[in-house]
Amino acid sequence: MNPILEIFSQGEEVVTGQIVDTNAAWLSERAVALGFTVARHTAVGDKLDDLIALLREIAQRADCCICTGGLGPTSDDLTAEAVAKAFGLPLEFDGIAFEQIQRFFARRNRVMPESNRKQAMFPKGAERIDNAWGTAPGFSLQAGRCWFSFVPGVPSEMRHLFLESIQPTLASRFLLRPGKLVSIKTLGIGESSIQQLIGGVEIPAQVQLGFRASPDDVQTKLLFPHDYPETAMTALVSEVAGQLGDHVFAIDGFGQAGGDLAFVIDRLMTGGKYTLAVVETVSQGLLAAKCVGADWLLEARYEQSVERLVQKLAVTVNADKFAGSELEQPTAGPKGEIQECISYDLPATAQAIAAEIQKTSAADFVLVQLNGGDNKTFRDKDRAIILYNTLLTGDGFHQTTHSVAGPINVKQNQAALLALDLLRRYLQHKEL
Amino acid sequence: MNPILEIFSQGEEVVTGQIVDTNAAWLSERAVALGFTVARHTAVGDKLDDLIALLREIAQRADCCICTGGLGPTSDDLTAEAVAKAFGLPLEFDGIAFEQIQRFFARRNRVMPESNRKQAMFPKGAERIDNAWGTAPGFSLQAGRCWFSFVPGVPSEMRHLFLESIQPTLASRFLLRPGKLVSIKTLGIGESSIQQLIGGVEIPAQVQLGFRASPDDVQTKLLFPHDYPETAMTALVSEVAGQLGDHVFAIDGFGQAGGDLAFVIDRLMTGGKYTLAVVETVSQGLLAAKCVGADWLLEARYEQSVERLVQKLAVTVNADKFAGSELEQPTAGPKGEIQECISYDLPATAQAIAAEIQKTSAADFVLVQLNGGDNKTFRDKDRAIILYNTLLTGDGFHQTTHSVAGPINVKQNQAALLALDLLRRYLQHKEL
Repeated sequence: MNPILEIFSQGEEVVTGQIVDTNAAWLSERAVALGFTVARHTAVGDKLDDLIALLREIAQRADCCICTGGLGPTSDDLTAEAVAKAFGLPLEFDGIAFEQIQRFFARRNRVMPESNRKQAMFPKGAERIDNAWGTAPGFSLQAGRCWFSFVPGVPSEMRHLFLESIQPTLASRFLLRPGKLVSIKTLGIGESSIQQLIGGVEIPAQVQLGFRASPDDVQTKLLFPHDYPETAMTALVSEVAGQLGDHVFAIDGFGQAGGDLAFVIDRLMTGGKYTLAVVETVSQGLLAAKCVGADWLLEARYEQSVERLVQKLAVTVNADKFAGSELEQPTAGPKGEIQECISYDLPATAQAIAAEIQKTSAADFVLVQLNGGDNKTFRDKDRAIILYNTLLTGDGFHQTTHSVAGPINVKQNQAALLALDLLRRYLQHKEL
Repeated sequence: MNPILEIFSQGEEVVTGQIVDTNAAWLSERAVALGFTVARHTAVGDKLDDLIALLREIAQRADCCICTGGLGPTSDDLTAEAVAKAFGLPLEFDGIAFEQIQRFFARRNRVMPESNRKQAMFPKGAERIDNAWGTAPGFSLQAGRCWFSFVPGVPSEMRHLFLESIQPTLASRFLLRPGKLVSIKTLGIGESSIQQLIGGVEIPAQVQLGFRASPDDVQTKLLFPHDYPETAMTALVSEVAGQLGDHVFAIDGFGQAGGDLAFVIDRLMTGGKYTLAVVETVSQGLLAAKCVGADWLLEARYEQSVERLVQKLAVTVNADKFAGSELEQPTAGPKGEIQECISYDLPATAQAIAAEIQKTSAADFVLVQLNGGDNKTFRDKDRAIILYNTLLTGDGFHQTTHSVAGPINVKQNQAALLALDLLRRYLQHKEL
């Protein structure tokens, strides 16, 4: 069993939502990597009784606790006082800490305000954590079952103190056996479909299976205990990834193939020395934006009206079908119904646009995204639109079609990802 | 005394630090604005015993609790089961919820996996919270002292359900005396400059002043008690906003002028029936992406090489200065130094590009963003780049220049916002 660790954040600004508590996530991630089981995060405001009650609770149920905040010089910084009261340890003056605080001010040519004296008062028996990054030293002590470390809430100070002082102490105080987390990242397939696909894979009881859906991917997570055999791990990851097939664009924590979709594509495009031109509609700039700073993305354009783009490019394909007002007034289905009656040929139009762009562009590949449904359908969260992606390479045309639904930002993001994913599939297939 | 509210976040991804819990801060801010005292945030993982213990604790000490997460279809989604066990309420099948979930899949042309059936099981006596934004309905119930509301952890769904369903219920169940929160939203000015500018404004002791910097704005927040006189409030907000001048693009919680930058611009563009064409470089599609679904954005393009764009458009201005390789190899300054030695005239080039685009575009306005510094400078977090924004309207050219520093995503986002902000200033000035 791993030792149990809790995170405790103190501050009115956290509990009233004026700031997002990024410290808790940062500390937890490191604690898990070290081999702790993180059981709980708690945030409370600057109220002495709340702090005392919480410290006593944690002292009973956790082996270790990292506490951030409440070490400042002002009257609402109550951590040391709360610890003293919670565990019956009188506050004592620490001359070395006081000197450090004075030196901090002297170095900045400032006079130390009297209120900062408070920051040199620690509960009896506490070990000081020197802080070269700010005025507030931290401290650690054992209370009940739990080893507590108290550090300032300023993220940069907290991170330095954790990495340089707390982490080495924890490694020596606890018998830690860090596990191994592998995340299989997929696109174009939902959490419940993934569960069905991998339903036949036998996951040993020691391996923890989890899922995480984010706007940019769905991750299937396997947490292996530290002593899990390497070959068995490789076999299980391969089996799960195999079930998810081409939907897998990266595996984090398992060799070199991690990262997000843009990162994976960047590696493949840079490796193959390819360049790209893009035409996007629904993603409206977001596809290009996701490739920010990429040398291989030469140009990208968004046109609200595909008809105008076709006219500008003087694309001649499908002149019959394309003429008239059909494109500007697609058949409006009732709420919730997918727009299916497209009377002109969007996949062929996408091909023609790609071919035309290739004539003037220096890019090796051209990626064109068109969509059925007008701007109103796009904005309606209850209506789906159909995406037609075409990739033109030296090997010819490659196409995918998707139905995308949800609020407009979800449609936009999915459109960007699904078009990029066509490029990713082409590049990974070519690499094999 | 205000009623006590707690926030409870469920999920291994939260407690292990794989995601930052932004839901807790968002909900707390709204709860405080409604008139609750937020006493505690707690996050626990997907462990049934931990969930049961925590639910029982909260039922004793809080009047209200908003819980996020754990309502998904998979085996690690345990919230309903934990509630059932914690309070001795058997799970019951809800036919209406089941129909809603089935319809969600049907609308997307997908078959509902059997696992989703679980999402229609609620503890006996719970009130369903319909979810038009995803598959998981939420639910509310009274247990002990506490009114619990359970919603999905997906931030967009959680926010919709809170605003549309939970907030009205809380307002009717609790005697709340909400304060009034006014957020003055600015761009192009930092928190410490704001503090200096408003240093001379006298803020009464009952009014709480706070700041919040996000990637998209800096907000100066004034929280007024519920019985604060309207006229005094108006006077104070006007005085603070007046000190910040043209940097203010919106004021939330104070009449109609709220919203983010794209929303403010959407209102102004739609109101004036204007249309826009965009050329972007550093923001690389993100400017267009921020205007997603806007009828007034007709076209947008990104070109990595301004030289190639100039050639394509056959822009003739500054041919002397423009010729040669200077544009492709800008003078590289040492680390940390701003790229200042631009030997060709980017503002004039931006004007020429805007004029050329206007010839072929149907748009009323053309917004062009160019930048000094190459892709390498762009990617280097320790180097700044200079942005040249030009807006061409019926009134002629309008220009701004900015220096933007930081990691590549920060530069990209700032570039998109600062170019859009030129358009916002023009439109608001025109409206006066």
